[in-house]
Amino acid sequence: MSFAHTHLLGIEQLNPFDITALLDLAESYVELNRKSVKHSEALRGLTQINMFFENSTRTQASFELAGKRLGADVMNMSMQASSIKKGETLIDTAMTLNAMHPDLLVVRHPHSGAVDLLAQKVNCAVLNAGDGKHEHPTQALLDALTIRRAKGRLQRLNIAICGDIAHSRVARSNILLLGKMENRIRLIGPPTLLPSAFAEFGVEVYQDMKEGLQDVDVVMMLRLQKERMDGGFIPSEREYYHRYGLDAEKLAVAKPDAIVMHPGPMNRGVEIDGEIADDINRSVIQEQVEMGVAVRMAAMDLLARNLRAKRETGVMA
Amino acid sequence: MSFAHTHLLGIEQLNPFDITALLDLAESYVELNRKSVKHSEALRGLTQINMFFENSTRTQASFELAGKRLGADVMNMSMQASSIKKGETLIDTAMTLNAMHPDLLVVRHPHSGAVDLLAQKVNCAVLNAGDGKHEHPTQALLDALTIRRAKGRLQRLNIAICGDIAHSRVARSNILLLGKMENRIRLIGPPTLLPSAFAEFGVEVYQDMKEGLQDVDVVMMLRLQKERMDGGFIPSEREYYHRYGLDAEKLAVAKPDAIVMHPGPMNRGVEIDGEIADDINRSVIQEQVEMGVAVRMAAMDLLARNLRAKRETGVMA
Amino acid sequence: MSFAHTHLLGIEQLNPFDITALLDLAESYVELNRKSVKHSEALRGLTQINMFFENSTRTQASFELAGKRLGADVMNMSMQASSIKKGETLIDTAMTLNAMHPDLLVVRHPHSGAVDLLAQKVNCAVLNAGDGKHEHPTQALLDALTIRRAKGRLQRLNIAICGDIAHSRVARSNILLLGKMENRIRLIGPPTLLPSAFAEFGVEVYQDMKEGLQDVDVVMMLRLQKERMDGGFIPSEREYYHRYGLDAEKLAVAKPDAIVMHPGPMNRGVEIDGEIADDINRSVIQEQVEMGVAVRMAAMDLLARNLRAKRETGVMA
Repeated sequence: MSFAHTHLLGIEQLNPFDITALLDLAESYVELNRKSVKHSEALRGLTQINMFFENSTRTQASFELAGKRLGADVMNMSMQASSIKKGETLIDTAMTLNAMHPDLLVVRHPHSGAVDLLAQKVNCAVLNAGDGKHEHPTQALLDALTIRRAKGRLQRLNIAICGDIAHSRVARSNILLLGKMENRIRLIGPPTLLPSAFAEFGVEVYQDMKEGLQDVDVVMMLRLQKERMDGGFIPSEREYYHRYGLDAEKLAVAKPDAIVMHPGPMNRGVEIDGEIADDINRSVIQEQVEMGVAVRMAAMDLLARNLRAKRETGVMA
Repeated sequence: MSFAHTHLLGIEQLNPFDITALLDLAESYVELNRKSVKHSEALRGLTQINMFFENSTRTQASFELAGKRLGADVMNMSMQASSIKKGETLIDTAMTLNAMHPDLLVVRHPHSGAVDLLAQKVNCAVLNAGDGKHEHPTQALLDALTIRRAKGRLQRLNIAICGDIAHSRVARSNILLLGKMENRIRLIGPPTLLPSAFAEFGVEVYQDMKEGLQDVDVVMMLRLQKERMDGGFIPSEREYYHRYGLDAEKLAVAKPDAIVMHPGPMNRGVEIDGEIADDINRSVIQEQVEMGVAVRMAAMDLLARNLRAKRETGVMA
Repeated sequence: MSFAHTHLLGIEQLNPFDITALLDLAESYVELNRKSVKHSEALRGLTQINMFFENSTRTQASFELAGKRLGADVMNMSMQASSIKKGETLIDTAMTLNAMHPDLLVVRHPHSGAVDLLAQKVNCAVLNAGDGKHEHPTQALLDALTIRRAKGRLQRLNIAICGDIAHSRVARSNILLLGKMENRIRLIGPPTLLPSAFAEFGVEVYQDMKEGLQDVDVVMMLRLQKERMDGGFIPSEREYYHRYGLDAEKLAVAKPDAIVMHPGPMNRGVEIDGEIADDINRSVIQEQVEMGVAVRMAAMDLLARNLRAKRETGVMA
């Protein structure tokens, strides 16, 4: 098994073999989740703690279901209502939790890098469920699994990522993953919502949807992250939809079998036309959610195997 | 087994055989819940999601306990703090959850009809935990079980439903259930709190408690639903208690063995005198809560059996 | 087995044999928690409800983990968002929960005595997770276990409890427990934060840290409970730290192997210097958290044994 990591902090640390191993395992969980049977005991006896310093009902639910279906004891901690208010530092909170001997810590935090910092302080497996504008690795992995199932491969595809790229950890993790798998990536968005330095990513950049969507296999829309736009330019929704919202006319220039993706929750009529979102011939938005549970099960399963192996050999107390 | 439903959306869809089958099964769970033993594995391997778009600690707790005692993986989603705030529609939220493959969805929503709408969009069993002023079927079923145990039958009883009937889904579901079981129903309340059209229900209507309570077997008090009185007449609590609060004097005209019910939480000294609420010879208010867990276990057990049968035959994916 | 209690309401009701029995059992859970294996089935089939009328992420998490690791069905009820708002009394809330047949009720409440009152109304085992300024027995027990492991004994030690003693149920439970085990207790704090009547406790009182810490074996710091200081004197943080914050200079007068404790969450630079808190040769603050889970497992295990025995003989319905 190629996946030898202690934590899942970002796509940056993964190589193509890691990614393929994780997606292959996730496939088996997709099948299991479709049956009304007890799913697995892979995490039996393990404690999973979901620490969300930022609200996210759907991501937290996906991780919670994933853990429960693998037999873990799952505990949710809403960290807004917590010790944080009482003046405790992030590190103290992490150390406190660590002393309770969790096995898997799933962490979302508004600050880029906070999850990496936390991972250095604990002796259990940490999964990044989104940190600031940095990474959201399980989102990129579920997107990858969705693409692979729809297109039959995860290589040599033309993939457009559209919208508010500058504020998006989803975009960043996807650019990293899809790049590692040797796809051609195009970023499309208004100049104010494009990352300032994109040359490093080896991507093409467009400001016009009809140019950028030409002949793509995959159209990946992003959510307008108004809550992360601090002080910058906020476009009007109508103007934004007119220029960057995905509608039938813009989609027409993509390949006839191009798929449409969105990480949710959607602003219908802002980023995407409602009819396209619901078009079961084009939209794989519901399948993305389904893949999310399977990918998180696979990630926790792999990390738990490594954790157990390390503890048995005494490498990790 | 007569109970052939896919969802439990309201009492309206149930016939007397359905009701009897469900109450009979619930009886067995009453016994089980009184023992400190593992209760059942009827829902083992199934995922139950509680989606409460309206706060209700006690109803949610009852469903949660019911599911856990049957071995389900139970997940609570507080939908006020969720994607709703991010502009997602109810249908998108439902579709998202559905993609995670829940088996049982327990839904409370402030809008009448919202739960029915949601049930059309998902391929799992939906239980209505209260929708607007429409239905609250498990409440009517737990009231029915409580009455049947206290009176030895659920037919040919004189039952008074008292108070804020116009705003009450509890009253509506009870009127439907008790009518189907061939009881004589009286509604008692101030004109402003009576439903505008009651002839359809085949009930008698009273504005005076001492008239309406004459010789009844069951006195069912309702909670003043101040939060659902939008713009209408709100009576003063003192005046309301004087005319419609249940006290010893008013109760004296009922049958000597009449039982007193309240769905909780009670406003003591508003709808009901504290001493009557605590009188173990008359009040079955605590037993209603106990029956609630058993009835919800029975409902989820029956729906899960149908779900599994349909999935095995491929009718429901 | 000496532990014959129905509830764990306070240290006041425990004798030295109870305390020793509980700590001995907790030791075995410490070992179990350090392994990534299924922990125990001691509470299998039992329902544990955590009712927190006051927020406490860390204490609730500790009880939740403890219950789950023993196989209980654990349900959290956030009582701020609950029926309380709808005007229900504490007793009605307790009676309602009781009717759902929980086996273990873990209760935190802002009013001293509220948990005792509640315990009289229910027929399950009640654990006090902190009530007002009264008691917090599991905190004192986890502190005792930490001391016993660090010092090899829980008798004949010089123990200083420092800071905001007047508002602290942690201090009160610790004074009771450490007194019963025949230790010499010193209270150190400004006059306004010392309890008005301390003679009853058989303790020595100091207003100067360097006097009070002379040759102690254990330095137990307390959290400044600003939220419980109603109307009284609130010291400035800087002045407080200068006089009562634990720093290297003040700690130097204690025994060379004195341990440093804090119940958390810490205000670094107010009650305690950050470097001392992190000094693994002196600080046992993380171990206190670890002991917390083990002590709560032991307490619930013992109470559940007594509950089952009583129910079998019909003493407790």
